[in-house]
Amino acid sequence: MLRAAVIGATGYAGAELVRILSGHPDVDLSVITSRQHAGIAFDTIYPALKGFVNLGCTESDPAAAAKKADVVFLALPHKASMAMVPDLLDAGRRVVDLSADFRFSSRDAYESHYQAHTCAHLMDKAVYGLCEIYGDRLAAADLIGNPGCYPTSVLLPLLPLVKERLVDPTTLIADCKSGVSGAGREATATTHFCHVNESFKPYKVGGHRHTPEIEENIARFAGESVRITFVPHLVPMTRGMESTIYLTTSAGADERQIRGCLDAYYHNKPFIRLLPGGRFPDTLHVRGTNFCDMGWVVDPGSGRLILMSAIDNLVKGAAGQAVQNMNLMFGLDETAGLDGVPYPL
Amino acid sequence: MLRAAVIGATGYAGAELVRILSGHPDVDLSVITSRQHAGIAFDTIYPALKGFVNLGCTESDPAAAAKKADVVFLALPHKASMAMVPDLLDAGRRVVDLSADFRFSSRDAYESHYQAHTCAHLMDKAVYGLCEIYGDRLAAADLIGNPGCYPTSVLLPLLPLVKERLVDPTTLIADCKSGVSGAGREATATTHFCHVNESFKPYKVGGHRHTPEIEENIARFAGESVRITFVPHLVPMTRGMESTIYLTTSAGADERQIRGCLDAYYHNKPFIRLLPGGRFPDTLHVRGTNFCDMGWVVDPGSGRLILMSAIDNLVKGAAGQAVQNMNLMFGLDETAGLDGVPYPL
Amino acid sequence: MLRAAVIGATGYAGAELVRILSGHPDVDLSVITSRQHAGIAFDTIYPALKGFVNLGCTESDPAAAAKKADVVFLALPHKASMAMVPDLLDAGRRVVDLSADFRFSSRDAYESHYQAHTCAHLMDKAVYGLCEIYGDRLAAADLIGNPGCYPTSVLLPLLPLVKERLVDPTTLIADCKSGVSGAGREATATTHFCHVNESFKPYKVGGHRHTPEIEENIARFAGESVRITFVPHLVPMTRGMESTIYLTTSAGADERQIRGCLDAYYHNKPFIRLLPGGRFPDTLHVRGTNFCDMGWVVDPGSGRLILMSAIDNLVKGAAGQAVQNMNLMFGLDETAGLDGVPYPL
Amino acid sequence: MLRAAVIGATGYAGAELVRILSGHPDVDLSVITSRQHAGIAFDTIYPALKGFVNLGCTESDPAAAAKKADVVFLALPHKASMAMVPDLLDAGRRVVDLSADFRFSSRDAYESHYQAHTCAHLMDKAVYGLCEIYGDRLAAADLIGNPGCYPTSVLLPLLPLVKERLVDPTTLIADCKSGVSGAGREATATTHFCHVNESFKPYKVGGHRHTPEIEENIARFAGESVRITFVPHLVPMTRGMESTIYLTTSAGADERQIRGCLDAYYHNKPFIRLLPGGRFPDTLHVRGTNFCDMGWVVDPGSGRLILMSAIDNLVKGAAGQAVQNMNLMFGLDETAGLDGVPYPL
Repeated sequence: MLRAAVIGATGYAGAELVRILSGHPDVDLSVITSRQHAGIAFDTIYPALKGFVNLGCTESDPAAAAKKADVVFLALPHKASMAMVPDLLDAGRRVVDLSADFRFSSRDAYESHYQAHTCAHLMDKAVYGLCEIYGDRLAAADLIGNPGCYPTSVLLPLLPLVKERLVDPTTLIADCKSGVSGAGREATATTHFCHVNESFKPYKVGGHRHTPEIEENIARFAGESVRITFVPHLVPMTRGMESTIYLTTSAGADERQIRGCLDAYYHNKPFIRLLPGGRFPDTLHVRGTNFCDMGWVVDPGSGRLILMSAIDNLVKGAAGQAVQNMNLMFGLDETAGLDGVPYPL
Repeated sequence: MLRAAVIGATGYAGAELVRILSGHPDVDLSVITSRQHAGIAFDTIYPALKGFVNLGCTESDPAAAAKKADVVFLALPHKASMAMVPDLLDAGRRVVDLSADFRFSSRDAYESHYQAHTCAHLMDKAVYGLCEIYGDRLAAADLIGNPGCYPTSVLLPLLPLVKERLVDPTTLIADCKSGVSGAGREATATTHFCHVNESFKPYKVGGHRHTPEIEENIARFAGESVRITFVPHLVPMTRGMESTIYLTTSAGADERQIRGCLDAYYHNKPFIRLLPGGRFPDTLHVRGTNFCDMGWVVDPGSGRLILMSAIDNLVKGAAGQAVQNMNLMFGLDETAGLDGVPYPL
Repeated sequence: MLRAAVIGATGYAGAELVRILSGHPDVDLSVITSRQHAGIAFDTIYPALKGFVNLGCTESDPAAAAKKADVVFLALPHKASMAMVPDLLDAGRRVVDLSADFRFSSRDAYESHYQAHTCAHLMDKAVYGLCEIYGDRLAAADLIGNPGCYPTSVLLPLLPLVKERLVDPTTLIADCKSGVSGAGREATATTHFCHVNESFKPYKVGGHRHTPEIEENIARFAGESVRITFVPHLVPMTRGMESTIYLTTSAGADERQIRGCLDAYYHNKPFIRLLPGGRFPDTLHVRGTNFCDMGWVVDPGSGRLILMSAIDNLVKGAAGQAVQNMNLMFGLDETAGLDGVPYPL
Repeated sequence: MLRAAVIGATGYAGAELVRILSGHPDVDLSVITSRQHAGIAFDTIYPALKGFVNLGCTESDPAAAAKKADVVFLALPHKASMAMVPDLLDAGRRVVDLSADFRFSSRDAYESHYQAHTCAHLMDKAVYGLCEIYGDRLAAADLIGNPGCYPTSVLLPLLPLVKERLVDPTTLIADCKSGVSGAGREATATTHFCHVNESFKPYKVGGHRHTPEIEENIARFAGESVRITFVPHLVPMTRGMESTIYLTTSAGADERQIRGCLDAYYHNKPFIRLLPGGRFPDTLHVRGTNFCDMGWVVDPGSGRLILMSAIDNLVKGAAGQAVQNMNLMFGLDETAGLDGVPYPL
C-alpha cells in the first residue's frame, strides 16, 4: 500500500483528494493536514464522510508528513506550495502539487502572473501533469505540477489538433464556464448563494492567470509562441466546467478529420470520451467523475471549428487528475480509485 | 455472480439501480428493459454512464427477464408491477418491487389508496423491505416490497422509539421535504425548472398515498392503529429528503434516552448515522449515498420531541435500499455495491 | 413628500427598503447610511439599481439622519438599534425598527433571548408592526418594532383563529422554511453557494430567537401564556418563506369555518390572499411582493388543522412590511410603493 | 387609454406581457387569449398575479381581438403569427409580433431557416423592433417584428461599433448563455429540473435560427453580408441572458474609443447601461428589468475586443422590448410600464 498525505485537506480540492484516496484500493491515506482546522476531526468539517475518514487534521508540517507518506499532495495556495516542496523532495518523497507553482517551464511567465519563484531550480524538474498529454514522463517524475482546471478543459481537446496542424492556434478563443466550487471554500461576496443564484457573469476578463498556463502548453506543440483570448464565467452550480473553444481550421479540415485526430490520440485513454456527432458536452454528465467529454462542430456559416469540453472542475480539473498522476507516477492502474460508476443525474 | 434484471430501467429509480448494480462486485447486470426506450442504448438516455453500461433497453417482458436473471428489480408504476410478479415467482425468480404493490399487509389499506389488487394472495408472502427493521425476514423472502421514500425517512428514526414506548405515536406529525427527482423523470408542469426554482411548497396535503404505508408500520409496533399527520413539500434541489417529525414523549424521556434507544437498535447498522448532539441532518451530507442520518432535540419550551432524518430519496429512498434488500436476501455483504465514499460537496 | 432615511442600507433588508422607497410615490429617500460602505455609491454595492438610486452611503449618524428625514428606518443588528432610537425620538422623528429591539412587551422575554435592554422605558411605547393585526394602533405610533420574518409568516394565518377560539394554541407546531437571504448579506460558511445548493436542513432547532416573539403574540390573543414548537429550515433559494403550522382544532371546526374566520378578518386587507380549496401556498407566487398567501386543510386522518402560508422573507417578512407600517403611520395609502404587479415566474 | 390584446397569453413571453401591460399607466389590457387554456382564469395558471389580472383566457380569435383592442401582441409560435397578421392589419390594428415571422427583410433567409412565408408581401412593411437602433421608424409602423432574445443581446452592443467601423464584423463570434425560461413553458426533457440543475451545456451548435437574424442586421450596417459564429448555451437559472462577443478591432481601437462610440449612441437611451471599466455584466443585475447592461475589454494578449452584455431574456429579450416598441409606436413615454425599480437581489 502506498502511503499518501494531503496537505491542505479541508479546502475543496483537498477534501476531494481525501474522498478519492479514502476509496483508493492501493492507497493508505495516512496524514491530512489543515492549518485552519488542525486538531479537528475531518468529518466535523465534512460530515458527509463520517465513517469513511477517521483521521483528524494536523498542522501542515512537511517533515511530519514526509515521515508517514510516500507521496504528498499539496492542495495549498500558490506560494505556500513552493515553500514545502524542496524539503519533501530532499526527504525522498514524491510530490503532486495542485497549486500553480510548478506548472510552468518559463520562470518569466510564472513570475509575471504570480510572484517571485523561490525555488526556480525545481521548475525544470517538475512535469506538467496533464496526464493524457505528458503521461509518458510521469513515471519518472518526482514532482508534478497538477494543471489548472481551465487549462485542463481547454488543452485536452485542443493539443492534438495543434500538434497535427489541423487548426491555427493564433485564432484561439476559449469561452469557459465554471461552477462555484472553483472559487474555493472561503466564504466571500462572490460565493454567497444570493449573489450566485440566478446570476451568470464573466469575471477577470482579459486577466485570468490561467491564460499563460494555456499559452505555454500550446506553444510547446505549435512551435511558436501564441497569445490566446480566454474569458472565464461563473455558473450557478456547484461542480462542473464547460469550455467552448473557437479556432480557424487549416484548409479543408472537416468534422471527420477532427474526430480522426482526436480518436487517434485518445482511443486508449480511459478518461476521454468523444461524443457522437450532434451531441455536445454537458457538465451534468461528468459530475463527480474524472472524465473529459468532448464534442465539436465545424460551423457551416463561418467555417470555424467549435470545440467543446466538459469536466468536473474538482475532479479532472483538480483532485482526480492529481490521483491519476499519482497512479501513473507509481505504475498503478491509471483508473485506480477513479472508476466509480457515474450518477445518472 | 448473481444475474440481475431491472425492469423499467430508464425512470430515475431504475437508472439509479443500473448505476449501483453496474458497480456491484457480486452482480452481473444482464437485462435492462424500458417500454418507452426499447431498442435504445441506455447511455443514449443517460450519457453520464457511457462506458459503464453497454446494454441496450429491451421490451419489458418478464419471461425473457426470468431466463436471464436470478433477481428481478421492478421499477415500474403501481399496478404494472403486480401484473408481472406472479410469473416471475412461478419461474423461480426472486423479486424486489419498488412500486407500492407489495408494501402493504392490509389489502383494504392498499385498495383504498391505490386500486384493486390483482394478486392479493401474494401480499402476505411479500416482506416489507425496510432493511434495518425487517432485516431478519429478508433472507427467506422471495418477494420484497421496497419501501417508499417518505416512509423510509419517517419510519427509520421513529420505529425503535415506538417499540420502546418512548413516544406517543398518536401525536405524530411528519413534515417532510423532497427534492424534485422524487417526482420522477416525466416532464410535467410540476418538474419544469422555472416552476421549481425559487419555489418551496407543500403538495398533496392531507392526501398523500404514503400516509397509510407509514401508519401500517407504526401500528405493527404500537400495537394499535394510528392516524398520523403527514405533509410533503417540494424543495428546489435534485436529490434529497429531510423529515422533521414531532411527537409527545412518554413521561421523562430525554435526549439521552432517545440516543440510547436509537443506538441500541442501530449501532451495528452500517447505513444509519446518529449525529452528535447539536448537529442536524442535512441532505447534502447524504447525497448519493445509502445513509440515513438522524438527529433529535427535546424542545425546551414545549417538551415535544423533534426527530429529524435525511436520506437521498433515490438511494436509501429507492434504489439503494432495493440493492441492500437484494444483498440481505442473497446473503451478500449488506453494504456491497453501496460503499462508495461520499462526496464532500 | 415624506423624507425617509434608511440606516443600514446595504444589508439585504436595508437594500430592499431602498428599492421600495425609491419607487414610492409619496417618499423622498433622502439619507442612506452604511457603517461598512460609508462614502461609497449605493449602486456600486447593488449595481442592479444603477440609475435609480444616486445617493452615496454615509456614516450611520442618527443626528444627521434626523435633520434630513421625517421617518427613519433602522435596518441594523439587534442592540445597534436601541442605541439610536432615543435620540431619533427626541428629535421628533418617527422610527420603524427592523431589529428585535422593540418587538417585545416583556422585557424578560427580550432579555432572556437577546441581551440587556438599554432603553426598556421605550418598549411600552413601541407598537408591534404586524400591520393586519395591530393596524389601528399604527397611526398614533412613533416607534414601530417591525416583526421578524418567521413570526409574520406564522402569526398572520394563526391569530384570527386563536382569537376566535377555533384552535388550541397549546398544540401549535410551526415547521418553517426560509430562503438564504434570511441569513443576511454577510459571507459565511452557511451562505456559501456550495453548502446551500442541494442542501435542505433544519437549524437552531429548539433555540431560535423568533420563538418568544411568536409566543408573546399568541398569548395576547389566547389570554394565557403558550409554549410553541418552532423549527426553522434553510431552503436552497434566494427569497421566500413557507410555514406549515399544525394545531388541534376546537370541536367541530372544519375547513369552511376556518375560511369564514380568516375571510372575516382579512377580506379587506390588501396583502392577504386566501387560496381556494385544494391550492397551497408557493413561495414562487409571492416572490418580490408584500403578499401573504394562505391555505389550510383539516387532515382527514388525524383531524388536525394544517395551516400554510407563504411570504417573501425580505418583503412582507422585512422591508415591505416596514413600508406598509410607514404608510399606516403617516396615513398614506396602505399599498403605496408596494403595488407592483408580481412576476409570473 | 390604449386598449391592448395579448394573443398567446399563457406562454412565458405572453405572461410577461400580461404582467407589464397590467401595470402600464396608459394601457387597458382588454383581451388575453390562450388556445390551450381558453375559458380558464389567468390567475389559475399564474397564481402570482391573483388580484392583478381578472381576465379569463379566450380563444385565440384575431377578429374578436381586433374589436376590443387598438394594439395586438402576438406571443405565438412561428407560423401561427403570420396566419393572423393580415386580418389584424386589415381591421386597422397595429401589431407587435414576438415570433420570427416578421423579423426578416430577406424572404430567403426566413424561408431557409423557418418555413414558407404565407404573407411575404408584409415583410417589407414590418419594422424590426430593436428599439434603440430602429426607434425612428417605429412611430410610423403598423407591424413590428419583435427581435429574438439572442439577437437583442448581441446586436445592441455590436451595431454601433459596426456602423462606425471600429470592428471587423467578419471575425464575429458570439458565445451566448440563456436561462431556462428561454425554452418556453412547455414541459420537456430539456426543461426538467433534474436535467437542468448542475448542468451547463451548449445546444444547437452551428444551427440556431437566431443566426440569420443576427447576420441580416449586421449586414445592414456593415454594407456587406457577414457569416458569424454563434453558440447558445443553457444556464441553470430561470431568467437572464449573457453574451460574450469576440471581434477583431480596426487598427488602433482601444477601450476608450469603444466607450466613446457606445456612449454617443446610447447616452440618451433609457434602457442601456454602460458599465464602468473593470465591471462586467451580470444577469442578476438586470433580472426582471428592460435593461441591457454592457461592458468590454480589449484583451491585452490577443488584442481582440471582448464585448459583453446582459439582459433578462423575457423582458428586454421579449415582452419588455415589445412594450417598449408599443410605447414608441404610439408616442408614449418610452419607459412607460417598464420603469419599476430593480430588485437588489
